[in-house]
Amino acid sequence: MSRLTATYQLFGQAGSFGKKAEGIALGLTVGSWTDLPLLEQEQLKQHKGTVVSVTEFADISHPLKSEQIRAEVKISYPSVNFSPDLPAILTTVFGKLSLDGEVKLLDLEFDDELLSHFPGPRFGIEGIRDKLGVIDRPLVMSIFKGVIGRDLDYLADQLRQQALGGVDLVKDDEILFENPLTPFESRITTGKEVLRQVYEETGHRTLYAANLSGRTSELRDKARKARELGADALLFNVHAYGFDVLQELAEDDSIALPLMAHPAFSGAFTSSPFYGVATPLALGKLTRYAGADFSLFPSPYGSVALEKSAALTLGEELTKASGVKRTFPVPSAGIHPGLVPLLINDYGTESIINAGGGVHGHPAGAAGGGLAFRQAVDAVLNGIDLAEAGEQHAELKTALELWG
Amino acid sequence: MSRLTATYQLFGQAGSFGKKAEGIALGLTVGSWTDLPLLEQEQLKQHKGTVVSVTEFADISHPLKSEQIRAEVKISYPSVNFSPDLPAILTTVFGKLSLDGEVKLLDLEFDDELLSHFPGPRFGIEGIRDKLGVIDRPLVMSIFKGVIGRDLDYLADQLRQQALGGVDLVKDDEILFENPLTPFESRITTGKEVLRQVYEETGHRTLYAANLSGRTSELRDKARKARELGADALLFNVHAYGFDVLQELAEDDSIALPLMAHPAFSGAFTSSPFYGVATPLALGKLTRYAGADFSLFPSPYGSVALEKSAALTLGEELTKASGVKRTFPVPSAGIHPGLVPLLINDYGTESIINAGGGVHGHPAGAAGGGLAFRQAVDAVLNGIDLAEAGEQHAELKTALELWG
Repeated sequence: MSRLTATYQLFGQAGSFGKKAEGIALGLTVGSWTDLPLLEQEQLKQHKGTVVSVTEFADISHPLKSEQIRAEVKISYPSVNFSPDLPAILTTVFGKLSLDGEVKLLDLEFDDELLSHFPGPRFGIEGIRDKLGVIDRPLVMSIFKGVIGRDLDYLADQLRQQALGGVDLVKDDEILFENPLTPFESRITTGKEVLRQVYEETGHRTLYAANLSGRTSELRDKARKARELGADALLFNVHAYGFDVLQELAEDDSIALPLMAHPAFSGAFTSSPFYGVATPLALGKLTRYAGADFSLFPSPYGSVALEKSAALTLGEELTKASGVKRTFPVPSAGIHPGLVPLLINDYGTESIINAGGGVHGHPAGAAGGGLAFRQAVDAVLNGIDLAEAGEQHAELKTALELWG
Repeated sequence: MSRLTATYQLFGQAGSFGKKAEGIALGLTVGSWTDLPLLEQEQLKQHKGTVVSVTEFADISHPLKSEQIRAEVKISYPSVNFSPDLPAILTTVFGKLSLDGEVKLLDLEFDDELLSHFPGPRFGIEGIRDKLGVIDRPLVMSIFKGVIGRDLDYLADQLRQQALGGVDLVKDDEILFENPLTPFESRITTGKEVLRQVYEETGHRTLYAANLSGRTSELRDKARKARELGADALLFNVHAYGFDVLQELAEDDSIALPLMAHPAFSGAFTSSPFYGVATPLALGKLTRYAGADFSLFPSPYGSVALEKSAALTLGEELTKASGVKRTFPVPSAGIHPGLVPLLINDYGTESIINAGGGVHGHPAGAAGGGLAFRQAVDAVLNGIDLAEAGEQHAELKTALELWG
């Protein structure tokens, strides 16, 4: 029988967690147990949540309540209790419970039967590499910057400069919504033409991810239209909508475009050490299961940074063996070429180096900024020290002098 | 020109907040300012975010970092920067920012122009009272309990007992999803018949809110079907889907059913004192603007409890003067008849007393439990002490003896 296992972090008195866990397992399933007649227990057995394990960390005290220690409890829920969709799953395992004091949802383990209801990425890492014809290095991505209130010519020029720098992907700023100066459809058609020209001039192919935004029920038609217009990929602020909305975009065969999940708003429910959902689960496993081909997240290094072990686990969740394809990890925020060795060390070659200011802020412009990143990637893959590589490549040297 | 004003809580060094606020105002709008040519400043002026106020609370230190104090900053965003929908708004004001350390979104102030894009409740408090013909007292609601794995006969009997107790509303358990034993449509038709019988027998009308669940794109058709079948109202786990999904249900004239917003999963982004979204904004203002006729939330009293001032502000957000109708506050969780005086004191008569265990756990069954609540409400409205009223009403007396 299919089951879903949730791991929670709790704080409390040593020895108190078994009872608490039992309360959760019953409260989120059949409600009560020991006071039920035996016949009813028999009938309800297949619906009952069960405590799988209780692990106390006696040496980890609550930072404000020294009498409390940290514990992790695993509870297994029968899948027959919920429909196989993320709203039902999240409501079951963390609906009421999310309001019940200091409890954090750390992980969810789907068995194969349950996972079969989730699409995972349509393209995945291999599919994206096929589109680009790049198989042997981390991809490089850059982000439009300062585009609110600007017109199409401005965006077209910014896109051209970025593509000329040799980046593989360019994404819209997540705060660029439908607007009269640079409407979604015009961004796609204009962007396509710009990137076609750059390809003709240089032979380098760059994909552009346009921000899919607006009302929920209109997203799929808008995405289909984007496909008709020849869009390369779509950026999506999944956490401002809901995981199931992403999943429906991913499942739709008439859309069939690479989907890039942006972490906007996710900090609201991932940042607290005591409440909410662990980052590797939210931006890693669930984003992958729901069908994102790319997952953006703060790297451990920039000004907006994730704690390193969470950032690494997140990358593993996106790429480890699973019944669904792999999602590209895109560590982001405050990335400059000097960080490329660290990022490749952390995430390997199956990842994307993504920069905004680190591209646009380059003294030689976005084209120079992109080149510096590509030069840094090549140096790392060839085992050459960045400073040494900088002696051969002016753009990289400039970047290293500026950002270290 | 329409604007949206966000209030944030930050922690930091005294005197540091003005610069931080300016960084947010620019970072979430035009990106940079002082280094722009004057001509570009002129062009972008209407898109620039501005700092409205910075208020430091010198006497409130961070509990773990004593050198940091609490501050509230207000930042105003031009509405022209985003499409008038909640995903775009949340991404603008708290997208990237939600990931940027200890920052909590406390409030959003919509001006009239922006608010005109949001439906608010279709029925509101008056509309729900019209349906019930009850105008002069708080309503009483009860919740199905322990229904997973049970069949329609079991639910029908539980519904009948609850209705016989004189409750005005009965809601599905939020963890009851589509299932073969008690499918959504059968729950509605069976429930309708049970409540018709009770009405014929007693003259008392009870409304039943069925849990609308499943995949996002199927919700509206499912809700339309519910309406065709004569459903009274729909329960909706809005925070497992997204505010915009609720709004689309509320706006749809072919659905036109009262919508009851359940707080499941909301604790993930409201519970932390340092991160996420303030409860009165999430379960109050935004739930109302998006169109819920009822908003359930933990009362300040039960085992799952909200901090009292937040719980009161939440009630105000649902009912204060605004361009949209009022939403019924439904303080919930651990409610028993002895709490009715406190709840009416806190939320007035324009609220709903909602109980699960406090109805079903009554020694005289759910019918007796409902009666005890109705008796408590009548006593409070007539200025009679509960203990005194208990002398006249056996069910109330029993409840007070059991729960205090």
